[in-house]
Amino acid sequence: MNRAKLIEQIKAKKSFLCVGLDPDLGKMPKSLNGDLFEFNKHIIDATAQYAVAFKPNLAFYEMQGVEGYKAFEETVKYIQDNYPEIFIIADAKRGDIGNTSKMYAKSFFETLGVNAVTVAPYMGEDSVTPFLGYDDKWVILLGLTSNKGSHDFQLIKDENGTPLFETVLKKSMQWADKNNMMYVVGATQGSMFADIRRIAPEHFLLVPGVGAQGGSLSEVAKYGMTSECGLLVNSSRGVIHASQEDDYAEVAAVKAQELQQEMASLLAEHNIL
Amino acid sequence: MNRAKLIEQIKAKKSFLCVGLDPDLGKMPKSLNGDLFEFNKHIIDATAQYAVAFKPNLAFYEMQGVEGYKAFEETVKYIQDNYPEIFIIADAKRGDIGNTSKMYAKSFFETLGVNAVTVAPYMGEDSVTPFLGYDDKWVILLGLTSNKGSHDFQLIKDENGTPLFETVLKKSMQWADKNNMMYVVGATQGSMFADIRRIAPEHFLLVPGVGAQGGSLSEVAKYGMTSECGLLVNSSRGVIHASQEDDYAEVAAVKAQELQQEMASLLAEHNIL
Repeated sequence: MNRAKLIEQIKAKKSFLCVGLDPDLGKMPKSLNGDLFEFNKHIIDATAQYAVAFKPNLAFYEMQGVEGYKAFEETVKYIQDNYPEIFIIADAKRGDIGNTSKMYAKSFFETLGVNAVTVAPYMGEDSVTPFLGYDDKWVILLGLTSNKGSHDFQLIKDENGTPLFETVLKKSMQWADKNNMMYVVGATQGSMFADIRRIAPEHFLLVPGVGAQGGSLSEVAKYGMTSECGLLVNSSRGVIHASQEDDYAEVAAVKAQELQQEMASLLAEHNIL
Repeated sequence: MNRAKLIEQIKAKKSFLCVGLDPDLGKMPKSLNGDLFEFNKHIIDATAQYAVAFKPNLAFYEMQGVEGYKAFEETVKYIQDNYPEIFIIADAKRGDIGNTSKMYAKSFFETLGVNAVTVAPYMGEDSVTPFLGYDDKWVILLGLTSNKGSHDFQLIKDENGTPLFETVLKKSMQWADKNNMMYVVGATQGSMFADIRRIAPEHFLLVPGVGAQGGSLSEVAKYGMTSECGLLVNSSRGVIHASQEDDYAEVAAVKAQELQQEMASLLAEHNIL
């Protein structure tokens, strides 16, 4: 999916919501007997009208071995078959030497055919560029993450006073432009969004950390929104596990709609709708 | 596997060889019809006597989807059942927010039961520590990798002139000691091994980059070997794809034995045997 189509979908749905498909067995209703795909299917059907993206995180599938990986594949295929307008992000945070990253890129973009994959920057250019050889496919590179540990290395200032995450942004902008690259920036990072927008004024940002992790949607929009929106804000636990009973899908729909409505207001305030 | 047992195995086999099980479909003999597990089984049987560790890289399995993931699981189980003395490293380079890293840790250490997993440090402490809650299981953290891109971020000097990889080592040494943590240091980094040994004089280092990537075994030993060896040197392509014909396992055995014999000499030179 190219940038124009993504923006079109945001305007049509009045939403920049990404629903994180991270099903936690301990929080799924017992009646599902741990069937990840069954759980996801209901979540997808219930929330697709409010979301522009779905983001399954591989960890939650790999945990169940082959069965889990199968559920991951089925989930991707179900979205592709039923909601082809939706942007699918494999949240994998991969990154390896060039020869190996090439395999990961094939896995995600050819075997699975998702639209985007999250990539970790530590290993540098040749660990990222193999993901960039596909038309209308996206790398979403870790910039400034939502967790406490983001302070350990990402904020380290170099000899010129530039924090590491800014160098990651600046260098990686030489590898791809706003049509193939997005950045992960945690909703918990508040005013640091302004620093990021100075460097990457037009790139889409994938923003986790709203909800369970404590980030605020209006603050993210205040500092991060561009004239084309430029944001995909993710909520996982706050939507999919808002109810741990059999009404989980209905409750997920309510939570997703609440977020969508807040997003519609923010898009209107920023004159995007 | 604990540290003492690993060192015992190194002395018994006179080897610190790790064979990278990264089967590339394009380099496998056609007679195998792309059967990754069948390929691995023959490689494992042919090289186990010369190796102390096997390291499957997930990328090469995920590329084949569910079938590939199944081959990965079968490979791990085959090693566990037939060569229980061998240290198994899942080369996955994972790392995510705490809640998610916990899932990866469960996947690798509980579902699969491997001995170690490679982890990327960019997201900091809470992305790494969930992997450290298991007795005799290991995190192998990316320190200074073997690829060209390692220069992009890992060598950036902070305001005190300390390169990022050194900060990664120093900080992570507060999270775990030499009994649960190793570091990835590329064989291509030559004399920088000396800097690493100043910071982590006793930790095991997992060293890729010998062979196809051009690193030298004797140089690695010169700068990196400790009185307990302290090294696991990996070769993947140089062993498993040395022949792309039906004699691939026999040729892999020859290549592995050559490396083992060179390692035996180096261990003797350093008075470890």
